[in-house]
Amino acid sequence: MSPDLEAAIASWQSILGDDGITHEDARIDAYARTTQASATRPGCILFPTSKEQVQEIVRVASKNAIVVYPISCGKNWGYGDACAPTEGAAIIDLGRMNRIVEVNKDLAYCVIESGVTQRQLYDYLNENNTGLWMDATAAGPESSLIGNTADRGFGHTRYGDHVQTCGSMEIVLADGSILNTGFGHFGNAKSEHCYPYGVGPFMNGLFTQSNYGIITKIGLWLMPEPEDFNFFYFQLKRHEDFEEAVNRLRPLKLQGILDTAIHIGNDFRVLAGSSHYPWEEADGKTPLPNDLRMKLRQRSTMASWQASGSISGTTGAVRAGRKALRKALRGLAVPKFLNDRKLALAENASNWLQRFGIGDNLAWRLEVVRPNYDLLKGVPTPEPLNGAQWRLRNPPDGEPGDPLNFGVGLYWVSPVMPMEGAEAMKVLKIVEPIFTAHGFDMIVSFILLTERSLVAIFNVAFDKNVPGESAKASDCYEDLVDSLMEHGFPIYRAGLQGMDRIRANHSTYWDVATEIKKALDPLDIIARGRYIPPLP
Amino acid sequence: MSPDLEAAIASWQSILGDDGITHEDARIDAYARTTQASATRPGCILFPTSKEQVQEIVRVASKNAIVVYPISCGKNWGYGDACAPTEGAAIIDLGRMNRIVEVNKDLAYCVIESGVTQRQLYDYLNENNTGLWMDATAAGPESSLIGNTADRGFGHTRYGDHVQTCGSMEIVLADGSILNTGFGHFGNAKSEHCYPYGVGPFMNGLFTQSNYGIITKIGLWLMPEPEDFNFFYFQLKRHEDFEEAVNRLRPLKLQGILDTAIHIGNDFRVLAGSSHYPWEEADGKTPLPNDLRMKLRQRSTMASWQASGSISGTTGAVRAGRKALRKALRGLAVPKFLNDRKLALAENASNWLQRFGIGDNLAWRLEVVRPNYDLLKGVPTPEPLNGAQWRLRNPPDGEPGDPLNFGVGLYWVSPVMPMEGAEAMKVLKIVEPIFTAHGFDMIVSFILLTERSLVAIFNVAFDKNVPGESAKASDCYEDLVDSLMEHGFPIYRAGLQGMDRIRANHSTYWDVATEIKKALDPLDIIARGRYIPPLP
Repeated sequence: MSPDLEAAIASWQSILGDDGITHEDARIDAYARTTQASATRPGCILFPTSKEQVQEIVRVASKNAIVVYPISCGKNWGYGDACAPTEGAAIIDLGRMNRIVEVNKDLAYCVIESGVTQRQLYDYLNENNTGLWMDATAAGPESSLIGNTADRGFGHTRYGDHVQTCGSMEIVLADGSILNTGFGHFGNAKSEHCYPYGVGPFMNGLFTQSNYGIITKIGLWLMPEPEDFNFFYFQLKRHEDFEEAVNRLRPLKLQGILDTAIHIGNDFRVLAGSSHYPWEEADGKTPLPNDLRMKLRQRSTMASWQASGSISGTTGAVRAGRKALRKALRGLAVPKFLNDRKLALAENASNWLQRFGIGDNLAWRLEVVRPNYDLLKGVPTPEPLNGAQWRLRNPPDGEPGDPLNFGVGLYWVSPVMPMEGAEAMKVLKIVEPIFTAHGFDMIVSFILLTERSLVAIFNVAFDKNVPGESAKASDCYEDLVDSLMEHGFPIYRAGLQGMDRIRANHSTYWDVATEIKKALDPLDIIARGRYIPPLP
Repeated sequence: MSPDLEAAIASWQSILGDDGITHEDARIDAYARTTQASATRPGCILFPTSKEQVQEIVRVASKNAIVVYPISCGKNWGYGDACAPTEGAAIIDLGRMNRIVEVNKDLAYCVIESGVTQRQLYDYLNENNTGLWMDATAAGPESSLIGNTADRGFGHTRYGDHVQTCGSMEIVLADGSILNTGFGHFGNAKSEHCYPYGVGPFMNGLFTQSNYGIITKIGLWLMPEPEDFNFFYFQLKRHEDFEEAVNRLRPLKLQGILDTAIHIGNDFRVLAGSSHYPWEEADGKTPLPNDLRMKLRQRSTMASWQASGSISGTTGAVRAGRKALRKALRGLAVPKFLNDRKLALAENASNWLQRFGIGDNLAWRLEVVRPNYDLLKGVPTPEPLNGAQWRLRNPPDGEPGDPLNFGVGLYWVSPVMPMEGAEAMKVLKIVEPIFTAHGFDMIVSFILLTERSLVAIFNVAFDKNVPGESAKASDCYEDLVDSLMEHGFPIYRAGLQGMDRIRANHSTYWDVATEIKKALDPLDIIARGRYIPPLP
């Protein structure tokens, strides 16, 4: 069957109304942008407002053999943004399905539709004095919660693993039917959003990093505000101390004493988050010359590595946790602790000092600390998007805003390691020469994510406004992904350009993934090529 | 294609050798037993020793259209034991595949084959001074770890949710190919057993409570022994206090202050675990007359409800946890705390008192407490199997042993509720009259399992040696399951007799489950009818 876009558009128009679909060039242009080297251009954009409309949309898609590509808010920065893997897809923009369907204070969960943003849920929880914290990802306030969950991103609190904290899913399948996972399909199950597994095969995982269906609603768990919260941060002077630090922190993660994400970022990570590439000082050279790197480090009292995390729970548990952390790091680093009271004091002091023209250093430190502090309390922050502007020749003033408006180039490369210092050092040894060879600065943050695994988030930051730089970044990305996989460190999440690479070698796993696709979406209508190999 | 068992047996014999297969009546008899009303009889039993043999076995099964039914140790007590849902299946007894492939002390995980028992892993961890705790289920020391994980049972420590603590799976599919989930299929991935999700759809959940493949190996996470451990228990005098207790404990679960399973068992639960039905005193009547029930309660200083759980972590966190628990229960109950030192003292005191003919009460209390204490430290115990002997007219002396040897009758009924006292009370109101109507005693333990869900484990204990009692128990089971589902409390796990009931109503969920079955096992060779509807 050959695709018939015109027929599909006519049908969609009758279902969604004039306001619910667009195929105007100017509006399509906005979706055909990416932070990566090359975008795909959709055939039209659909704006459903209900799951029933989504059901109708996929039925029409099947009938006319048009690939649809669902996005929640389209903020999949650095992984492909709002772009479909294939040209000419109909984007299903779920942004108008943004109801917060339920917030249960006693049981600490919410039920939300696809378009609900981090900011929206955060505001709702605060304005209604729920006493509940959400988990926040680093994708910024305007990004969606479902999109991140579906792509298996992670947040920074103890509920940062969204596979483990998603209670239920409502999914529209390619034939237009609706799948409720867990107990949801029983219709009347009281624990639908509390107990995720149901009875029979547990399916939630199947709908993450795949294209088997369109998630239109999930139950997401929230946390009661803890009795006590302490942010901590520390620096590691020497590059090689990183190895030891990972090994010292691992037992605390395994014992559950530290149960949130711990970030360990290198100097470039901090620099990129708080400043721009010093083009003048570097005399236009890339990557940043080492002597200049050292000068910048000193100027901002930065070390090789800066780490941050948090401890929360009862006051007693937090006190014990501080003690355990201090002990674990003895001789390596001295952790500093911050809570809301101390942070407010420091911010006041900083403002006061600045009136006298001093205290810039404190102000800078607070600026660096604040976003991580917030994330660890489930407060969405736009800061991590700053890092992507590092290499812009003409960065915009003020807040980072939409990276797509400024030619920000960004690839995330995110290999997974067992939580062992030696393995992390191996990854650095593989990666650093590749960054250098391609003329980029190795911006990296290691995240002690689960109790026994470590994820590194490398950021290939580039300037799309400079001719030739996108091609270089693209080569760098592919080189990184392939080399890491070759050495036993596959990435946890793929951008559009990585899809082919992760499935380069034949395996039963991809066969099974393909068989399931054939069973659930034989025409390969939904998000063709996303993680699952395109059907022949 | 009509099944050809003889041809299959001949092929299997050549693959496995004489020692690797049996179809002798006497040995088949041993597998054709159940604690439930009616067993199924297998056609033969296969004993592979390697995954390669399992691959060969399913290839032969496909060729000859014989259903195979994998068991790990066959100890699925109260849910169908070693029986296949269908008559004449070839049982694949994986008991000889019992290698502990790896124990990684630094990263706190093990890799084990299907036949590894709880006792075997527990002994290994101790004998090798690993300093690691496993999670233990209540299924007894001789039950397997993989079988429980595959059926989504649960343990009692903070790693009691095996969906969340299983790092990797190796699965033989119906076509004989081998699926490695997560990063396992990359072959060289360093974090194969540490990071479960891999890249692409997360499939582990699919192979729990299903029949899509045969799990031959898993990576299972272990816990470093905590700095401090406190067992706690308390009693609730009045039946109705239970509702309030659940509501008071919920915030502590949600905050992660209590992160292990908390059991709240009724008087019957304790009686059944430590004694037998008082046939003489009851004058042969069932269920137990209320005045006698009250007499037994008093005799053993038992209350309506007895609760137990544990707090572990740093000494400071445990101290704070004790304080929080005491505060939460104020006016309702006074929790008592036990650690290893106190328990040893109490046991010594009890022995000493008994020499003088006193202290029976203390001894009894310790006997009741010990198994729960052990389970919360990941020590497998045979105690929960005692409960199943409650109604035997002629119970065996000494250790419970294999329930199948004594005509023990047992159905578990395990509805899930949101963690709300009122919902738990509703479940009791539904269930109690059904137990009474069928002449059984409502033995129940409520488990505060996850942070916001509650599972009740009802035990229909009966005596298979008494004509007519199995039929009554079977009716009681079906009545319970149906009534609970009707009121919004589906069971988390089904016995063979429950399979039809959980899928009684059509839903997209079961359609999807069926489509996946067709894709992965089109001949419906593996465990036909287990959770997934049999293919037509």
